[in-house]
Amino acid sequence: MTFVSPTAPASYTWEATDEEVAARYGLPIERVVRFDLNTSPTPPELIAELLATGRFETRLSEYPPADYKRLVAAAAERFGVGTDEIMVGAGADEVLDIIGKVFLPEGSRAVVPVPTYAMYRVITEQRGASVIPVPRLTADDGYALDAPAIRQAATEAAVVWLCDPNNPTALPEPAGSIARLLVEIGADAAAAGRTAPVVVIDEAYAEFVGESLVSLRVDYPRLIVVRTASKAYALAGLRVGFAVAAPEMTALLNPFRSPASISTVSSTLVAEAMRDGSAMAANVERVTRERDRVRQGLIDAGWPTGRSVTNFLLVDFRSVERSAAAAEALLQHGLVPRTFGPAHPLADHLRLTIRDPHENDRLLEAVRAIDPTLPAPPSPTETPA
Amino acid sequence: MTFVSPTAPASYTWEATDEEVAARYGLPIERVVRFDLNTSPTPPELIAELLATGRFETRLSEYPPADYKRLVAAAAERFGVGTDEIMVGAGADEVLDIIGKVFLPEGSRAVVPVPTYAMYRVITEQRGASVIPVPRLTADDGYALDAPAIRQAATEAAVVWLCDPNNPTALPEPAGSIARLLVEIGADAAAAGRTAPVVVIDEAYAEFVGESLVSLRVDYPRLIVVRTASKAYALAGLRVGFAVAAPEMTALLNPFRSPASISTVSSTLVAEAMRDGSAMAANVERVTRERDRVRQGLIDAGWPTGRSVTNFLLVDFRSVERSAAAAEALLQHGLVPRTFGPAHPLADHLRLTIRDPHENDRLLEAVRAIDPTLPAPPSPTETPA
Repeated sequence: MTFVSPTAPASYTWEATDEEVAARYGLPIERVVRFDLNTSPTPPELIAELLATGRFETRLSEYPPADYKRLVAAAAERFGVGTDEIMVGAGADEVLDIIGKVFLPEGSRAVVPVPTYAMYRVITEQRGASVIPVPRLTADDGYALDAPAIRQAATEAAVVWLCDPNNPTALPEPAGSIARLLVEIGADAAAAGRTAPVVVIDEAYAEFVGESLVSLRVDYPRLIVVRTASKAYALAGLRVGFAVAAPEMTALLNPFRSPASISTVSSTLVAEAMRDGSAMAANVERVTRERDRVRQGLIDAGWPTGRSVTNFLLVDFRSVERSAAAAEALLQHGLVPRTFGPAHPLADHLRLTIRDPHENDRLLEAVRAIDPTLPAPPSPTETPA
Repeated sequence: MTFVSPTAPASYTWEATDEEVAARYGLPIERVVRFDLNTSPTPPELIAELLATGRFETRLSEYPPADYKRLVAAAAERFGVGTDEIMVGAGADEVLDIIGKVFLPEGSRAVVPVPTYAMYRVITEQRGASVIPVPRLTADDGYALDAPAIRQAATEAAVVWLCDPNNPTALPEPAGSIARLLVEIGADAAAAGRTAPVVVIDEAYAEFVGESLVSLRVDYPRLIVVRTASKAYALAGLRVGFAVAAPEMTALLNPFRSPASISTVSSTLVAEAMRDGSAMAANVERVTRERDRVRQGLIDAGWPTGRSVTNFLLVDFRSVERSAAAAEALLQHGLVPRTFGPAHPLADHLRLTIRDPHENDRLLEAVRAIDPTLPAPPSPTETPA
């Protein structure tokens, strides 16, 4: 995140592109591998086959069908909900933005447990609303939500942004804890005669766990679960995300959706990938296997790496200098880690995405050649975004 | 447009999809032709060739390059501006939405000359801002802007939304009139010590005229010209639009842009189509030729049809009943016209998109079979959105 001016809201800092990394480190672009974006290594084979036919729901000269009927149906089937419980967006980011539009009026407040995905703060501040940050528990406590503090903050909030499993901490909330929190938040609102806040659960990584909290919408109707095609489905380039919520919530969200933000190509392909599901399942299986291997390899090389239920790992260098040195060393190999910037609570950590076995091998080889006890190398002229 | 509740902002009414029209009128779906969306009939052949290769800027499992460098470069070259004068969006609609985010705080006001594209009002009201509607001059005056009234309204406005050539009236502003208006608006603001309002010129149909007002940004730096790949480029299904503005304006807009709302497929294909440009030029030539033929055919059949510099025609039935009857008769042939709803100043008009010669022939045949003097047919149970 960066601030465009002292009074302007936060903005999302875009990652350096492959081209920029290649140019900065003098590498051929095909040597650049993204370990920083929590994407999956290879799109499903189905996608290339569908693209080659050139046949999509409607001709590309026409607007997409505004109801995205096939995409909505595939998502509803996949998530086990009704078609009136789905709203589509151009990536989960558009879904988050629409939630902000509808539920965060200027001057309102939103709870953000930190550290977490940076966009919740960005979207909140872009609405002229403000963030109530609630620190998570420690690594020893699995970075779990501080439920009493969130409950308290929620009494003043229009929206509570949750992410489960959480990015970048890679762990799920303890079983039942979010359900209990929702009961408490609902009870507090009822006792005070207030409308309960909207609670968002961003489940971008849910497929890697195989579980979803979408059923909680029955008891907490102001719940919105956010899902995406960008992670386990390995289709980040197509930009498709979803809100899953009770019909009365999607009825509030839908009027604020742009009539056609998703391309016809993307809606056709993602609908097929979700209907099929086999490539996603295979990807989850492969990522899970590789995750355990990569984690062990990192630990063996002296990089203290936490547990993960997602497609990424969090490495704790316990020193900002050491984490910066490690990042720089990886970048020199064309391997792009996620860094967090000096002001972030995880400034002394790196986040690494699980990729395909060959790419993971390149990572582990590079890691073995780096001494993690070393301080920062002499003044790199520029550090990556 | 519709209103979701007495206090909620306007929302865009989505058109009936091909499937809905086919079901409602008992037609095979391939008989449905959209004369209502101002799209072009056929995507460039280049697109199918590129899709078949399956090669895009980055793999579809990765996020698109956040700077959309190739797309921005192609657009800058095509529009004759610097790459720092382009902001991309998921269709012109996202560009309009970002303009609203940045320049329309809650409680502010925006000038909308009416009738025009419905989204300006929707976006304004979704921001908690309000519209100052300024009626356009009459059909005899080419539906031109009422410049003195707009100048006056602009003294209270944060944003002035212009569309040139205007949709749905199909005509351009008289030469030099917008340039003069900008000088006056700028002078009024300077004299009052106010920041001049942002003036948006939506040039969605500019390619059909072959002219753009983008050069006016030099003298009026708070100008934003909006362009699209959806009309002359015949790529509405890919959802790509642009803001063209001075670097100090794109610097204000860019932080509010979602990092990756455009799919990698769309950005790759639209960049190529804009770099090439030949399919767009051929489409403009064909549409222009067909437009004159279709207009004459409509007039010969007794449908009073105005001049047009765009890819659509406006037919004036001078009676809401007659225009509803004509719409219903066309729909029974699977030909979908644009209707305007009973409260609209053009409620007694239909708008018809120019399509390919064969589709236009179907339209003209159907029109010749309809008696335009007839009143509405006996109570259709439902009218199209």
